[in-house]
Amino acid sequence: MAVNGDAPRRSMAGRALALLGVFDPAHPRLRLTELARRADLPLATVHRLTGELVSWGALERDADGYYSIGLRLWEAATLAPVAGRLREVALPFMQDLYEATRENIHLAVHDGFDALYVEKLSGHRSVPVISRIGARLPLHSTGVGKALLARAGAEFLRSYLERPLPRFTRYTITERARLVREVRATARRGYALTNEEMTLGSCSVAVPIPVEGHGPAGALGIVVRSVRTDLHRLVPDLRAAADAIARRLDESRVPGVAEGGFVHLARGGSR
Amino acid sequence: MAVNGDAPRRSMAGRALALLGVFDPAHPRLRLTELARRADLPLATVHRLTGELVSWGALERDADGYYSIGLRLWEAATLAPVAGRLREVALPFMQDLYEATRENIHLAVHDGFDALYVEKLSGHRSVPVISRIGARLPLHSTGVGKALLARAGAEFLRSYLERPLPRFTRYTITERARLVREVRATARRGYALTNEEMTLGSCSVAVPIPVEGHGPAGALGIVVRSVRTDLHRLVPDLRAAADAIARRLDESRVPGVAEGGFVHLARGGSR
Repeated sequence: MAVNGDAPRRSMAGRALALLGVFDPAHPRLRLTELARRADLPLATVHRLTGELVSWGALERDADGYYSIGLRLWEAATLAPVAGRLREVALPFMQDLYEATRENIHLAVHDGFDALYVEKLSGHRSVPVISRIGARLPLHSTGVGKALLARAGAEFLRSYLERPLPRFTRYTITERARLVREVRATARRGYALTNEEMTLGSCSVAVPIPVEGHGPAGALGIVVRSVRTDLHRLVPDLRAAADAIARRLDESRVPGVAEGGFVHLARGGSR
Repeated sequence: MAVNGDAPRRSMAGRALALLGVFDPAHPRLRLTELARRADLPLATVHRLTGELVSWGALERDADGYYSIGLRLWEAATLAPVAGRLREVALPFMQDLYEATRENIHLAVHDGFDALYVEKLSGHRSVPVISRIGARLPLHSTGVGKALLARAGAEFLRSYLERPLPRFTRYTITERARLVREVRATARRGYALTNEEMTLGSCSVAVPIPVEGHGPAGALGIVVRSVRTDLHRLVPDLRAAADAIARRLDESRVPGVAEGGFVHLARGGSR
């Protein structure tokens, strides 16, 4: 077995988790040697651990010898709170927005320095976007991100500005003073706008979901082709949807009802 | 530390996976003692392992001391093939079906003896259903399940019939000879029907997604109120959607294009 500098500090459980953590959107399928290299673990260890992970269903191995995340892990992950109540409550309102616009409808939550996309609806005619469920995109270059940034407060904004602000298009706001002004304007008017700041050809409008204490802060956004200039026209519907989602989340906090997060569905099934 | 009969046979990685496996839709939040009991592990082991799982993000612990599946595990799980290409390809067609009906639109795959629900669209006016993303429901009592059963072949049907057939309503088909006839009729006409067999008040129509070699077999279904008697009217649209999904999946199998499963999105982002 190869000597590995990091290995003595990591438990076997930690090494198993490290193997799950090396997959990313650009690398959803990996060979055994790539797993070992990316997790910085000896090949023999990886061979043994992948055997365990595959037999449980945390990983699966296809006919070409590539490993990917397994069905049982995906199934367990559908029980995460972020995928549960927030998504369930938001989805019918997102459907309404989709029907009214036929555009990309996004639900994202604030996690660390990112907007984490937890739901996305889109149709055949929606503008192609980089987002997907599970994607992380920056707070300063996306509509939902700016809505979350405007809600996070001055102290968070200061720490956000201490980090590099990656540029995605020539319209991405990377000048710090300008971003501060933009975030203040967003907070004042209550909704965020982007114009080709993440992807050329698309622009977006987003609002925060005005609720406290249901896990991470959330935002709801619509991404449309940038030739459409009537983004402001979408704000009343977007705000009504975000308010309705917040009300539903608050209602479900009644003791004994919110418990578990799947009560709504269980009750639906008993009718 | 308590003596545990099973523990010596399980590695530390196996025990960590066992802790992830004890959550289910009825128990998405568990206390430490419940985790230990359900995983059949000593409390001290569970205490140490949950510490590792929380610090990686595989579990999270809320203010009330309950554990649930963590955000980072959810994020890794979005990379599972079942959540990737199949869902991405199917979603716009599911949106069309939703817009045409405003009812529950289901995408399920065949896994073991279950229909595993990988996507579900529903609106305010859709009939309440027991399904949710990540749910497993039986093959003999659901529309998507019967469509999958009709496609799985005679040998699989024989092994399915060797197991108990749970009854959910007085209309669930639990008599073996009747289920065989039902499955044959489903295969013959190319679509499945249910009438209050899973939940009183709702009925469904479903078709298989006619594609081979893209992971588990899939089916697409619509669940409506049982007072609507025009299920047959939904078949042409449902079949057209399933055929279109199959065509897209086949097209994306061109070597170098299917690779990874997220190419479509990555390309969208570069426009």
